[in-house]
Amino acid sequence: MSAEKKINTHERSQHEQKKHAALPDINSSFSEWYHEVVFQAELADQAPVRGCIVIRPYGYALWEEIKKILDKKIKDTGHQNAQFPLLIPESFFKKEAEHIEGFAPELAIVTHAGGKKLEEPLVVRPTSETIIHYMFAQWIRSWRDLPLKINQWANVVRWEMRSRPFLRTTEFWWQEGHTAHETEKEALLEVQTMLLEYIDLVENYLAIPVVAGKKSESEKFAGADITMTFEGLMQDGKALQMGTSHMISQQFAHAFGIKYQDRNGGEAYPYLTSWGATTRLIGALIMTHGDQKGLIMPPRVAPIQIIIIPIFNKNMPSDQIEKAALAIQGTLGNEFRVTIDADTHTTPGSKFYKWELKGVPLRIEIGPRDIIQQSVVITNRLTGEKQTVTWQDLLEVIEKELQSIQTMLFERARARRARQWHKVAKLIDFADDLKNKGGFYQTGWCRSPICEAALKEYQATTRCLIEEKQFLHCFNCDLESPSDVMVAKSY
Amino acid sequence: MSAEKKINTHERSQHEQKKHAALPDINSSFSEWYHEVVFQAELADQAPVRGCIVIRPYGYALWEEIKKILDKKIKDTGHQNAQFPLLIPESFFKKEAEHIEGFAPELAIVTHAGGKKLEEPLVVRPTSETIIHYMFAQWIRSWRDLPLKINQWANVVRWEMRSRPFLRTTEFWWQEGHTAHETEKEALLEVQTMLLEYIDLVENYLAIPVVAGKKSESEKFAGADITMTFEGLMQDGKALQMGTSHMISQQFAHAFGIKYQDRNGGEAYPYLTSWGATTRLIGALIMTHGDQKGLIMPPRVAPIQIIIIPIFNKNMPSDQIEKAALAIQGTLGNEFRVTIDADTHTTPGSKFYKWELKGVPLRIEIGPRDIIQQSVVITNRLTGEKQTVTWQDLLEVIEKELQSIQTMLFERARARRARQWHKVAKLIDFADDLKNKGGFYQTGWCRSPICEAALKEYQATTRCLIEEKQFLHCFNCDLESPSDVMVAKSY
Repeated sequence: MSAEKKINTHERSQHEQKKHAALPDINSSFSEWYHEVVFQAELADQAPVRGCIVIRPYGYALWEEIKKILDKKIKDTGHQNAQFPLLIPESFFKKEAEHIEGFAPELAIVTHAGGKKLEEPLVVRPTSETIIHYMFAQWIRSWRDLPLKINQWANVVRWEMRSRPFLRTTEFWWQEGHTAHETEKEALLEVQTMLLEYIDLVENYLAIPVVAGKKSESEKFAGADITMTFEGLMQDGKALQMGTSHMISQQFAHAFGIKYQDRNGGEAYPYLTSWGATTRLIGALIMTHGDQKGLIMPPRVAPIQIIIIPIFNKNMPSDQIEKAALAIQGTLGNEFRVTIDADTHTTPGSKFYKWELKGVPLRIEIGPRDIIQQSVVITNRLTGEKQTVTWQDLLEVIEKELQSIQTMLFERARARRARQWHKVAKLIDFADDLKNKGGFYQTGWCRSPICEAALKEYQATTRCLIEEKQFLHCFNCDLESPSDVMVAKSY
Repeated sequence: MSAEKKINTHERSQHEQKKHAALPDINSSFSEWYHEVVFQAELADQAPVRGCIVIRPYGYALWEEIKKILDKKIKDTGHQNAQFPLLIPESFFKKEAEHIEGFAPELAIVTHAGGKKLEEPLVVRPTSETIIHYMFAQWIRSWRDLPLKINQWANVVRWEMRSRPFLRTTEFWWQEGHTAHETEKEALLEVQTMLLEYIDLVENYLAIPVVAGKKSESEKFAGADITMTFEGLMQDGKALQMGTSHMISQQFAHAFGIKYQDRNGGEAYPYLTSWGATTRLIGALIMTHGDQKGLIMPPRVAPIQIIIIPIFNKNMPSDQIEKAALAIQGTLGNEFRVTIDADTHTTPGSKFYKWELKGVPLRIEIGPRDIIQQSVVITNRLTGEKQTVTWQDLLEVIEKELQSIQTMLFERARARRARQWHKVAKLIDFADDLKNKGGFYQTGWCRSPICEAALKEYQATTRCLIEEKQFLHCFNCDLESPSDVMVAKSY
């Protein structure tokens, strides 16, 4: 784990402490709990524009940790980062019929610029297939130019009627990969490869177990032939789509004229993919791991892995205690992300409260008695367990504790999901539980949109097709089910 | 220097090679040379929206190297990254009179979204003072909340009538720092600190010598009390503003109601600063170091520091040669950014041409004879010098060569600037040279906007006030000059 040092002498001042009320009950008021924890832990703030948020430093530091890991994965799998324009001519969206149909209701449009009405309105990108495929058409001339594997880190805008911080916001931040390949097989492999990279990211770094599979026709991306999704189950029993990987329809290559000379000298169109993951991952992390005290950050992505709190009292000069805290930070700072909260205007108690709320995995207290004994007290955010550790053993214990929290968070989420993963043949037998308790319902489905629509009554949808066949027939009719489907309510 | 490995087996295919025409003459057609080198070296491409560009992977990799260095500097000086909304209510711009006056002609406006006309139009941010100060007003309540030191990496849009890739584009990418302080002194120190960080970045990493100083009243940022600038002198004798650091007018704190309780329990307004540097830095790098063959990348920011070119011939199987190239890359890859161009469809000659155009500082050739002698041939992009180096000495020689190129680029630019830095008392004596040859003209100035406006006739402006007093009187009238001023034509 990489190293970072910081001292916050007054990041949270006493007067701000007052604004922290106890969090709403996580079991009975999950939605209110979520909102409060986002704002009180200073991950984000409401922006003065409909549905938009400000990502505050603590939230953005978390996003930077996630980005660092995902960016490396993207580069290691042979993609290159680039930047495409924010503003896209409106006509580009009309070139692919399904795409415009899906996105039209969500578009934000620039009609005036430089003091004049524009001849053609410009769309603030909701996703960049159109502009990137337009450029691909300039760049791809020969089979030698393939594969072309591009990624972009960017902000996108989709007009949202009902927004929730991180989960659904008018502007959000993401990466969008766009690739072009000679063969369908190679493109399908790309779709699968990036899906697996995403799953590795969320399971092994964010500690969130997911179910992955293909979206149904009605749930797939506007313009995709195949949409692969990976979804987590939140504490309130709702599914959360955490990212998608698409096999893009050949219509795009034709619509944008991405023609090239193939190996035989003939004319061909490439197979296209796109895949993206967004700041919604932060919402998933909060809703998977949080508890009544606030956030719990998985150590591998925690912006601060260890918070050191010097315990000042009259038995020792403050600067001597602070010096010992700095020495501890020095010892740990090369391997871990460590911050000291040396504010002298706040009580240890309110510091404990604050850093628990922010979900820092480990807390180290060091006071006069600890200094005399050459030890510190370590508290585990997840279990609440305290232990006294000598300076000599510190590095080793910290390493173990962080790894244990990382593993326990994942295992806890997996066990919860197992309890909420139901296998039921008929909708009539799980409809009430689906509606009232939530959870994943694995069942059979004939693939008909009519049967799928029967789920609407319970505010549920098909989340993904899964590669198991435990049920022979549809949850709604008596027709055969080719393979199982996962049904849930969702964000 | 950090490590990165890549193999491009066909990044530039033969058919694309053909599209490379010789570059226009750098001396007689600098502007055309600039455009061609940007496109041919694949730093950027024209976008289908007025004044916008696409930053291609090679250009974006350069930007990522620059970002990495600057982001570290920003964090090391105690700032935290955050994200603020792209869309800003139009009314926010009207709260500060000078600010709206300066930016109104450049704004792009969203009038429709979600299929409806908006009640209040939204501005696509041209800079984020207004939205950030609005949030500062929520966050700053007590002197304990100060200083507040925030930075944002973002895209911004300013409608440009005459765009040039990287130098002036409708959308550009930048960081914008925004800070709030208790005292004017502290804010002034912040303005100066960030100016010095920028100068360190451009001089010691981009190898571009700059002149720094205060902008005149007419040239400063719309809404600033003081604008500090740092400017380089390009090869065609024009100055380029490379970034700015502002003391923001107290009007902003009042306009947005950023009130707080000071140390004495009274009501106070903070002192604000902002500072930014943009993708224009890439333009500065190209125009400072390029030559007739194309770009020259300063090693410390070069996306590829070393290109290895295996020389295939009949005396040895290709895979043996490629294996040796891979071994060399393995040796160097932990310390340097190294790529192999193993394309078997392109001649070594066209590879040399391509990587010279792209400005890779060092080229390593390895063929059958080199392998037998356990050596390679290294070519220096700046001097063109070739040397044979044994595998044993390779790491040491590469390290030295890269450092030498970094130093020579800076010294060469500094020497050129010294030749073009003229000290002349009266405009009448330098007007012709200013107009026809360009260059920096250090002179005296009474500070009157009327005398400043006399420069317009020669397409020149004051670039910055400098802390020297070699001239007692104004270049245009006979009034006293408080200190010298730098005059030049500029981008």
